[in-house]
Amino acid sequence: MTEMSERDALVLFMPSGKRGRFAVGTSVLEAARSLGVYVESVCGGRATCGRCQIEVQQGNFAKHKITSSLNHISPVGPKEQRYAEVRTIPEGRRLSCSAQILGDLVIDVPQDTVVNAQVIRKAATDRLFDRNPAIQLCYVEVDEPDMHKPLGDLDRLNLMLEKDWGWTDILVAQHLMPDVQQTLRRGNWGVTAAIHRDLEGARPNLIALWPGLHNEAYGIACDIGSTTIAMHLVSLLSGRVIASSGTSNPQIRFGEDLMSRVSYVMMNPDGREAMTKAVRQAINELTVKVCAEANVDPNNILDAVFVANPIMHHLFLGIDPTELGQAPFALAVSGAVHTWSREIALAINRGARVYLLPCIAGHVGADAAGATLSEGPHRQDRMMLLVDVGTNAEIILGNKDRVVAASSPTGPAFEGAEISSGQRAAPGAIERVRIDPQTLEPKFRVIGVDKWSDEDGFAEQAEKVGITGICGSAIIEVVAEMYLCGIISEDGVVDGAMAARSERILENGRTFSYLLHDGAQRITVTQNDVRAIQLAKAALYAGVKLLMEKQGIDTVDSIRFAGAFGSFIDPKYAMVLGLIPDCDLAEVKAVGNAAGTGGLMALLNRDYRREIEQTVRKIEKIETALEPRFQELFVHAMALPNKVDSFPNLASVVTLPDRKVLDEAGEAGGRRRRRSRG
Amino acid sequence: MTEMSERDALVLFMPSGKRGRFAVGTSVLEAARSLGVYVESVCGGRATCGRCQIEVQQGNFAKHKITSSLNHISPVGPKEQRYAEVRTIPEGRRLSCSAQILGDLVIDVPQDTVVNAQVIRKAATDRLFDRNPAIQLCYVEVDEPDMHKPLGDLDRLNLMLEKDWGWTDILVAQHLMPDVQQTLRRGNWGVTAAIHRDLEGARPNLIALWPGLHNEAYGIACDIGSTTIAMHLVSLLSGRVIASSGTSNPQIRFGEDLMSRVSYVMMNPDGREAMTKAVRQAINELTVKVCAEANVDPNNILDAVFVANPIMHHLFLGIDPTELGQAPFALAVSGAVHTWSREIALAINRGARVYLLPCIAGHVGADAAGATLSEGPHRQDRMMLLVDVGTNAEIILGNKDRVVAASSPTGPAFEGAEISSGQRAAPGAIERVRIDPQTLEPKFRVIGVDKWSDEDGFAEQAEKVGITGICGSAIIEVVAEMYLCGIISEDGVVDGAMAARSERILENGRTFSYLLHDGAQRITVTQNDVRAIQLAKAALYAGVKLLMEKQGIDTVDSIRFAGAFGSFIDPKYAMVLGLIPDCDLAEVKAVGNAAGTGGLMALLNRDYRREIEQTVRKIEKIETALEPRFQELFVHAMALPNKVDSFPNLASVVTLPDRKVLDEAGEAGGRRRRRSRG
Repeated sequence: MTEMSERDALVLFMPSGKRGRFAVGTSVLEAARSLGVYVESVCGGRATCGRCQIEVQQGNFAKHKITSSLNHISPVGPKEQRYAEVRTIPEGRRLSCSAQILGDLVIDVPQDTVVNAQVIRKAATDRLFDRNPAIQLCYVEVDEPDMHKPLGDLDRLNLMLEKDWGWTDILVAQHLMPDVQQTLRRGNWGVTAAIHRDLEGARPNLIALWPGLHNEAYGIACDIGSTTIAMHLVSLLSGRVIASSGTSNPQIRFGEDLMSRVSYVMMNPDGREAMTKAVRQAINELTVKVCAEANVDPNNILDAVFVANPIMHHLFLGIDPTELGQAPFALAVSGAVHTWSREIALAINRGARVYLLPCIAGHVGADAAGATLSEGPHRQDRMMLLVDVGTNAEIILGNKDRVVAASSPTGPAFEGAEISSGQRAAPGAIERVRIDPQTLEPKFRVIGVDKWSDEDGFAEQAEKVGITGICGSAIIEVVAEMYLCGIISEDGVVDGAMAARSERILENGRTFSYLLHDGAQRITVTQNDVRAIQLAKAALYAGVKLLMEKQGIDTVDSIRFAGAFGSFIDPKYAMVLGLIPDCDLAEVKAVGNAAGTGGLMALLNRDYRREIEQTVRKIEKIETALEPRFQELFVHAMALPNKVDSFPNLASVVTLPDRKVLDEAGEAGGRRRRRSRG
Repeated sequence: MTEMSERDALVLFMPSGKRGRFAVGTSVLEAARSLGVYVESVCGGRATCGRCQIEVQQGNFAKHKITSSLNHISPVGPKEQRYAEVRTIPEGRRLSCSAQILGDLVIDVPQDTVVNAQVIRKAATDRLFDRNPAIQLCYVEVDEPDMHKPLGDLDRLNLMLEKDWGWTDILVAQHLMPDVQQTLRRGNWGVTAAIHRDLEGARPNLIALWPGLHNEAYGIACDIGSTTIAMHLVSLLSGRVIASSGTSNPQIRFGEDLMSRVSYVMMNPDGREAMTKAVRQAINELTVKVCAEANVDPNNILDAVFVANPIMHHLFLGIDPTELGQAPFALAVSGAVHTWSREIALAINRGARVYLLPCIAGHVGADAAGATLSEGPHRQDRMMLLVDVGTNAEIILGNKDRVVAASSPTGPAFEGAEISSGQRAAPGAIERVRIDPQTLEPKFRVIGVDKWSDEDGFAEQAEKVGITGICGSAIIEVVAEMYLCGIISEDGVVDGAMAARSERILENGRTFSYLLHDGAQRITVTQNDVRAIQLAKAALYAGVKLLMEKQGIDTVDSIRFAGAFGSFIDPKYAMVLGLIPDCDLAEVKAVGNAAGTGGLMALLNRDYRREIEQTVRKIEKIETALEPRFQELFVHAMALPNKVDSFPNLASVVTLPDRKVLDEAGEAGGRRRRRSRG
């Protein structure tokens, strides 16, 4: 670094906002690095990799007291010119290793530097993450062997990695040793080394080596769900997601839900091994798929981050999950796992590293940690409720002062199981329901049909896909609508008296049902269905409420639904049902696969790994089964929306029905009163 | 540590001589640790492993101002008593974890604490080495799982390793994860962890785990020679070598010497792989052999140290050695190699670590580094010459200020190849020779016969083994004796004129031979044989002399012969031949397999690893082929003992003959003069 002088220029980097004064003649790359602004460079300033592109913002930035102009940056020199001739460089872009600071500048570091043409199918998320990947590509030119100084080829390579890139005490992956001499000679002593360093202060690992300039490095972020495995393929050099895909978890053949898979392991001596093999193979096939989509060689994948629920996490690592099937639900390992691709038979670069986010507890896994990292309750002043609903619901509640977590056994009702006409979300499934409060006639929408059932042309379209059942989102809606119309009481009893008003109220022995659709398939909502939904929603709400009591709060500031279920349900109906506590509806959002987004963040920036490791260590874990209060909260939560809790925000947008108490046979009893709003 | 007071006792530990004051009540183990005295303990002070034995030395140690008495140590308590009842503890020994300091003490830390009965066949060396192994066994009792604090089993294990043993940031070997839960439960939450940490400051590795107290840990130190592989099996807990063995290198079938093996690799596409497989398999078989000998489970081998010449080093690691067969003789890797047993297919514990000493240069390998570590020229004020004679001679010369190294192409003559009657050292080979200066009649000894050839009963014994050839040591002696008797001139010409004095001088066309033995096999030393020895010894001497000139010295203070060859030759004859420079004969010693001893040191004490790594970095490497001066020195060294150098020490014990110059046909020519002594 040259000494500062009066003529030093003021340089502001965007979007980070970091700024500093630099001597005229300093390269923009050097300036960025000295401020800790992440600008990629593989070639080490030789103007050959094209990764260090920046853009000068012209104009008078009064707020920053900077007048930035193209005259304040050195003109394109011969090396940069040569690069531009061989490769394409977008209009206005400069290579920061070659461009020198001549005066005050505002510099934009674009997040979308693409060097090798890649087909980008879809954005996994529209959020931009600061990059600080655990993998760095470093091009070096190594001294040729010298009989007077007989250092080994690898030792001279390491010396240059220290000299040019500052890596000291490099640990070399054993599998590289047999090839290092040939690689150096093929590259005519110019080679690109992939260095992995995750933990600060740890020895850097040399994990891959290519002859010449190697300008591609990728990573995968993968969420191993019980039913679905989702993967992002990411360029570690640009930070872009270049392909995303999913596949069903082949372990389903060993058992639909997690507990049946644990049972399978307990009953079959080779069960654990078979399931480990199945999930790893599915991940390898999915890797091939995303690589094919983006035209990437799997050998260029150098880092992989995984999130998963505890049982998937263990099976993926080859750990018997039996302990997770019984109290005290002991995890074999809860902390973050650092390993190598070849240790777990992943078909990516042999030296690639693997990172698994920490698990929070025996029922709250690395997927919940990923969702936490993505949504960041621990980064906020406001109190956020983050729920991921599946067979178990993971519940995270907190803000920057304190985060608590629990899981609640919601069972499979929300997924359509245990519901008489329930089915998975697929063409033919009813996904939306409205009931006219006067006539009690329903209208609905079916997956694969773009009209409501009362619109013209619905019948013709529906004929093609059929009307086969009710999926999770519609179950929520139909029960909520039944409640709003008075078909069911706050205790969830279908009101037999309503049969007088509508033929849709059917008697089944001692209980009543609601006929939603009468066609090739007769779709009803039975008393048992309502009970199943009540049990599921009560479990979730009681868990949430337990955590709210631990936090000493009566209301939450925002609610985030993670996972597929959350993406399809209408927050209003979820609240009418009392699945979630009262909250400003504008603050209730579905965030999709937040677990996967968390994995992506940990892949792109190792600071996020440290952040979630620290956060998970601090999260207080509540075991609902051990809390005497849970039962009481559960009983209150059986009522719609709740026996004791009020929903003022909800009541301001929805007219909640009068309280109506019915016995199991649907007979009106007790007092009627206006539901308290307070 | 309690606060110091007037009543603090003075404790001296032997043999280290370290001393300190400790509060009454401090355990002897704690005192030793605080002084950095290495006392083994696996159980962590629970008086169950028995590894921490010490002995109180009684008496008045005036020099140290200590009166040490059994009254100054606490009596045997119940835990120690229990140990003594279950296991054997030698008379006078105490467990330092239980014995408390009550007053001034002189404590002996015995080097031979043997807990499990082991058959000890032979000592590899009578030297004792301070221990500081890279492996430590740590017994811990882990908290049971707790739903309120749902840390994983492994995480709770790591916490206890930190609490009880001070290990932080432990990196867990992936292969342990599937078994950790079962191991903890089988040990009823008491387990023994093997921790590997070699480099100071590096993260400790958890590499093996056993239920309960596991009181055995072993290591192997192995020298991979071109013809022989030698191995020591060592208890890492006592420091004792418990078995040693050797086997021939199966690579011999690919080529007798190193260069023919390199050629094999160059000519055969699968040659490298075949040779790597062969040497690893031989090492695995040798491991089985030493383990069987000492009744040790190979799974209890947790560390392995290897030394080897550069070509064996590379082939062992799976590296193609082709570059070592041609200038500039580039090593793939010269620095120390740290790896894992499973990476190189060793059949020891799956988590075992492997360490290879650094190579010095393309022709001066990790074996020479091992010999350097063992003999320690770099630890001395005096100038030491260390030579290891094989097909190449490795030469190390130096003292604590400066060490230089070279290799010299001696060829295989010293091993009996290229010698008309040469053979390997085996029964039937002549190994010692004397020639009567008056009669020119020889007497000799034969391997497998315990009499000299002129002794009664020799013929009968010799008939059993035969007299089949001359091995390396005898070649040195017979040529030296021929010179001392005047049969050959200082230029190595067999004097045809001597044929008149003895029928043993035979004419072969234009040159003459000496008939050493006339039996079933006619054993002669021909002019060509003498020439081959001259070429070999001149190469060695010229190399030595080159290094002496680099050091700016005329004489060396001591000479060490490493390797098998050195163990059999008589230093006096080596000097008469001019194989080594003049030196006090009492300072010339054969040190056996010093390379293997160096490996053993690096196995027992990781400080030695750092020492040899630093030393090798500082050693100046001289490439004889690049030194113009080498040729001149070589020509001088063709003469016996040398054309220009004097041998005053040698001349004081041996009467060197007059200088006699003969032409190739053995005719006397030129002047005769008394050989200069000065």
